[in-house]
Amino acid sequence: MRKIYLEDTPLKEAQQQIANRIHFMPLVEVIPTREALGRVTAQPIYAKVSMPNFHASAMDGIAVKAEKTYGADEQHPVRLRYQVDYVEVDTGDPIPDGFDAVIMIEHVHQIDKETVEILEAVAPWQHIRPIGEDVVIGEVIVPDRHKLRPVDLGALMAGGNVTVPVLRKPRVAIIPTGTELIEPSENVAEGEIIEFNGTVFAAYLQEWGAEPVYHGIVKDDYELIKSAVKSAVQDADMVLLNAGSSAGREDFTVHVVEELGEVLTHGVATRPGKPVVVGVIDEKPVIGLPGYPVSAYLNLEWFARSLVFHYYGLLEPERQRIQATVGRRIVSVMGAEDFIRVTIGCMDGQFIANPLTRSAGVTMSMVRADGLLRIPPGNLGYEQGEVVDVELYRPLEQIQHTIVSTGSHDLSMDVLHSLIRKKNPGRFLISSHVGSMGGILAIQKGEAHIAGVHLFDEETGTYNQTYIEKYLADKDVVLVQLVYRQQGWFVKKGNPLGISSVHDLAKPGITYINRQRGAGTRLLFDYLLKQEAVDREGIYGYSREAVSHLSVAAAVAGGTADAGLGIYSAAAAMKLDFIPVSEERYDLLMTRAFYLSSQGQELLTCIRSDEFVAEMEALGGYSCRDSGKIVFSTSMSEI
Amino acid sequence: MRKIYLEDTPLKEAQQQIANRIHFMPLVEVIPTREALGRVTAQPIYAKVSMPNFHASAMDGIAVKAEKTYGADEQHPVRLRYQVDYVEVDTGDPIPDGFDAVIMIEHVHQIDKETVEILEAVAPWQHIRPIGEDVVIGEVIVPDRHKLRPVDLGALMAGGNVTVPVLRKPRVAIIPTGTELIEPSENVAEGEIIEFNGTVFAAYLQEWGAEPVYHGIVKDDYELIKSAVKSAVQDADMVLLNAGSSAGREDFTVHVVEELGEVLTHGVATRPGKPVVVGVIDEKPVIGLPGYPVSAYLNLEWFARSLVFHYYGLLEPERQRIQATVGRRIVSVMGAEDFIRVTIGCMDGQFIANPLTRSAGVTMSMVRADGLLRIPPGNLGYEQGEVVDVELYRPLEQIQHTIVSTGSHDLSMDVLHSLIRKKNPGRFLISSHVGSMGGILAIQKGEAHIAGVHLFDEETGTYNQTYIEKYLADKDVVLVQLVYRQQGWFVKKGNPLGISSVHDLAKPGITYINRQRGAGTRLLFDYLLKQEAVDREGIYGYSREAVSHLSVAAAVAGGTADAGLGIYSAAAAMKLDFIPVSEERYDLLMTRAFYLSSQGQELLTCIRSDEFVAEMEALGGYSCRDSGKIVFSTSMSEI
Repeated sequence: MRKIYLEDTPLKEAQQQIANRIHFMPLVEVIPTREALGRVTAQPIYAKVSMPNFHASAMDGIAVKAEKTYGADEQHPVRLRYQVDYVEVDTGDPIPDGFDAVIMIEHVHQIDKETVEILEAVAPWQHIRPIGEDVVIGEVIVPDRHKLRPVDLGALMAGGNVTVPVLRKPRVAIIPTGTELIEPSENVAEGEIIEFNGTVFAAYLQEWGAEPVYHGIVKDDYELIKSAVKSAVQDADMVLLNAGSSAGREDFTVHVVEELGEVLTHGVATRPGKPVVVGVIDEKPVIGLPGYPVSAYLNLEWFARSLVFHYYGLLEPERQRIQATVGRRIVSVMGAEDFIRVTIGCMDGQFIANPLTRSAGVTMSMVRADGLLRIPPGNLGYEQGEVVDVELYRPLEQIQHTIVSTGSHDLSMDVLHSLIRKKNPGRFLISSHVGSMGGILAIQKGEAHIAGVHLFDEETGTYNQTYIEKYLADKDVVLVQLVYRQQGWFVKKGNPLGISSVHDLAKPGITYINRQRGAGTRLLFDYLLKQEAVDREGIYGYSREAVSHLSVAAAVAGGTADAGLGIYSAAAAMKLDFIPVSEERYDLLMTRAFYLSSQGQELLTCIRSDEFVAEMEALGGYSCRDSGKIVFSTSMSEI
Repeated sequence: MRKIYLEDTPLKEAQQQIANRIHFMPLVEVIPTREALGRVTAQPIYAKVSMPNFHASAMDGIAVKAEKTYGADEQHPVRLRYQVDYVEVDTGDPIPDGFDAVIMIEHVHQIDKETVEILEAVAPWQHIRPIGEDVVIGEVIVPDRHKLRPVDLGALMAGGNVTVPVLRKPRVAIIPTGTELIEPSENVAEGEIIEFNGTVFAAYLQEWGAEPVYHGIVKDDYELIKSAVKSAVQDADMVLLNAGSSAGREDFTVHVVEELGEVLTHGVATRPGKPVVVGVIDEKPVIGLPGYPVSAYLNLEWFARSLVFHYYGLLEPERQRIQATVGRRIVSVMGAEDFIRVTIGCMDGQFIANPLTRSAGVTMSMVRADGLLRIPPGNLGYEQGEVVDVELYRPLEQIQHTIVSTGSHDLSMDVLHSLIRKKNPGRFLISSHVGSMGGILAIQKGEAHIAGVHLFDEETGTYNQTYIEKYLADKDVVLVQLVYRQQGWFVKKGNPLGISSVHDLAKPGITYINRQRGAGTRLLFDYLLKQEAVDREGIYGYSREAVSHLSVAAAVAGGTADAGLGIYSAAAAMKLDFIPVSEERYDLLMTRAFYLSSQGQELLTCIRSDEFVAEMEALGGYSCRDSGKIVFSTSMSEI
């Protein structure tokens, strides 16, 4: 049928294989120095002229003949005549012939228009910048293979190099393949996908100093792909194909490379990122990148980035690394090298790393990741509390300025994030969605600064407080009212199935989509079932879990469920009908230490601002009548 | 006469003044997402479509109806019919209507063309990527004021944002002023200077995300400058003037800003960088930058960089910092904030920082600097051995891969640097020139890996060894032969003064230029004087010191001296006549630890290579007949 297994080549081995095989011969181009920022020199660059190329005054003052000043002191001032013994000079002016020293204007006493007096003798060449003080003709300004920085351009031009020989940027062809792909468009039909991996590749390549050459989309057809690769190899220094690098029916990359050249590697022992093709055609590297975005970007870095720096003969720069404590247990299997996207929070000066989804298909996990944790092949993972080495995706100072938010998902967190950034430049707020109970546990474990919670207690008829008393008895926390919000049923436009209660959901043929365990909305659903005495076994889809209001709404809009429970704004976003069920209180839980910190006070100021109220109420389904009120504190008197 | 004093405003105060005074109102532009790398969002960006927007297979395999698989196990395989019970799908394919799960191809046994068998039941939605798994419609992809990275572009496009609203880049006008300035040209007359500060400003501004707008050169004329500033303020968000920011006769900036707007600061309490003008015209910042390159670049960073990030509402990124040990005493005066350019060497795992020249006119000091050391106003400096905080100009890993060379200057060090970079990507060699004795002391103090030395001992008639025995008795060092080189007199073309011996130099009217104390060439000169019994008092210019062969040659070529002593290649570079005096041995001194290290061995390989010999002999005045030979070691037997 099909070849379905890939190799398990260790990553380092695959990288070394291609690096040893390829010998780039970069072309040289001579370009204006003004346009050479970031380019790499093709040879050592020598000064062609000296800078300055004349003797120049180093001060504002007068140029004199030093010997005329000899003997001057407080008791024996010396008078000098204009044009004969001195001339006025400013910093940078050439020293006129016959003069050989400069006296600072502060040390000159004007007697009359034609005469000055000085109180101190000067040595020849005092305050004169001699020829070549900055750059001397023949001196090496920058060495070979030097990546030009702004100040290098200045020194090159000072040394008379108005053009500079640099290595031509490596041209990297990007060939997107896939019948489902379309070029960027406002209108995307079902089954179509906007080609976006190519844009990400091109942007990374630009950052690394390469020149991306974007090829149009090629359909999943062996001959079409082959001819695209053939012509790309003629023009480019490296070719990237995406996707089709695995071993499925329509994965043509490996066969095309085999036919036109040589496959070095098909499959590396990493997770994610396994299905990559590394080959050589006409002495040029050809990389088949996987279709899943995360796998593709990791392989791009492992292979294309290495090869770009190999081309220039430069050391590949390393990302900044920090030591972080593992917040949640991370499991790995023997044999594969695991690359785990993590968020990093700075809690009381300690860095806590928590894993994001491992799905290779979730581009947003790369957007949200603060860093990457590598688990070596022989390691079974890390326990909570272990200290690990993490490679940073965001600058450390950003991570240190980030408020880490978790718990239940609500759009108010997005609004708050934008507001806090606007009011406090450089401040970030990053949310992960683990449900209300998850939020309480995160505060307990010190994994987050704040948690959004909406946990209804059937017995007391109150929100949140009883849960906090139960689970955070030993913690010093503050609960702040954020918003009231409408919860209701999400149903298709026009409510064709006539759903308005939990009884309707239990009817045959109706498919429900639930929230994950620990979500406040799930507790509300359980409460409604109990109140109406409907058995959860009778709800088809009770065990199918979505992790956010928007995911539930998307499932209903997409037709895989007929109804779900959630907030108004999510229904509105997905153009669904919304049948109100109840109003609930959504609070922010935080430690007292955070509440009292400047970050905490900035956040409170945002919550109590008119902008916040206006933006929330514009979304619909929200009320801000008590926003910013302290609901509860473990030692109320101190606040 | 003239206003000659500047203010001493503390830097922080001057920065805060302008930041508080300016309220940028950035314009918004909507651009294709493909071109948005590095741009800053003007609002939070929400997903317009879900990604995927259809249920997609997460595996290569077959799509099935889950209920048809119920009951399947090893004992009870279930057979499925093509098109009826299953269809083939590849990763990413839409799931056809009526199917609700995917089975991996590895778990499918093909019975015949129309039939497959499975041994395990599957749950609904297994291996299906639901709509919105990556991005859910309505979700925030990136917040407001977010600098877009490659992966953000992918997520934006996945979420249907093929265009994105971003802040227009701040337009920064650069107005170079100065009658002596010319646009970049191959031909520079005496008294002319190629305008290069503007190129450096533009390059930095680009790196920081601004759009530099380069204005042509304006002559030193009040009205011309005023009219250039007036029109620049109309068009730009910020205006930079360079130079004319001090208080001299032709320093017009402060007066122009006073007439058109308001001067906030004229002079900051820093060294270098004092003479800066910070003002406001039409609510736009106007910065008058000093003419000296180092002062200009520091002020650019202090004011223009801060304001660019202020414009975007982003935190100004910090440079990486390290703790380094001060290698040489650094003196500061009370009251001013000192900014010292330093080189940093990594010696046995410890970072050693040594000051470069403090002259604000030396662009090359910025090229050579590995970092910047700030000395607060109230501090008198640092003693050798003190540990200080240094802001890095080069990546740490580059510093760690750098061979630190010091001692006497010879062109062979430049040739070696290029060779070692070519043969060992990522390796650097950085030289400072402190003379042969300085080199020996640097090895003694552990400030350098290698030192170039050529010290002749009159008594023994040998080079270097007796000095090493005297000064490095307790060190374990190795002396490697590098080159033999010709020393001789530098005289003007045609030798118009007929100089051929030290006797000629003592004649009246002849001006000599000497090397600095501790330079091997100076010792040679002293030896020649002694040999010929010429008194140094009789040499006019004996006390004028230049720090390199090229500087000596430049002085002779420039006419401020009639003769000097140095090596052939420097005379050739400056088109001077060269009258040979003697051949000397130029060796490389290194610690045994360095000699035995991989860096040391790489260096030896270069010294012994044919390329090195060919390049040196092509320069003229060199012989490599013993290059790479071990001359001497404190424990010879071990090498």
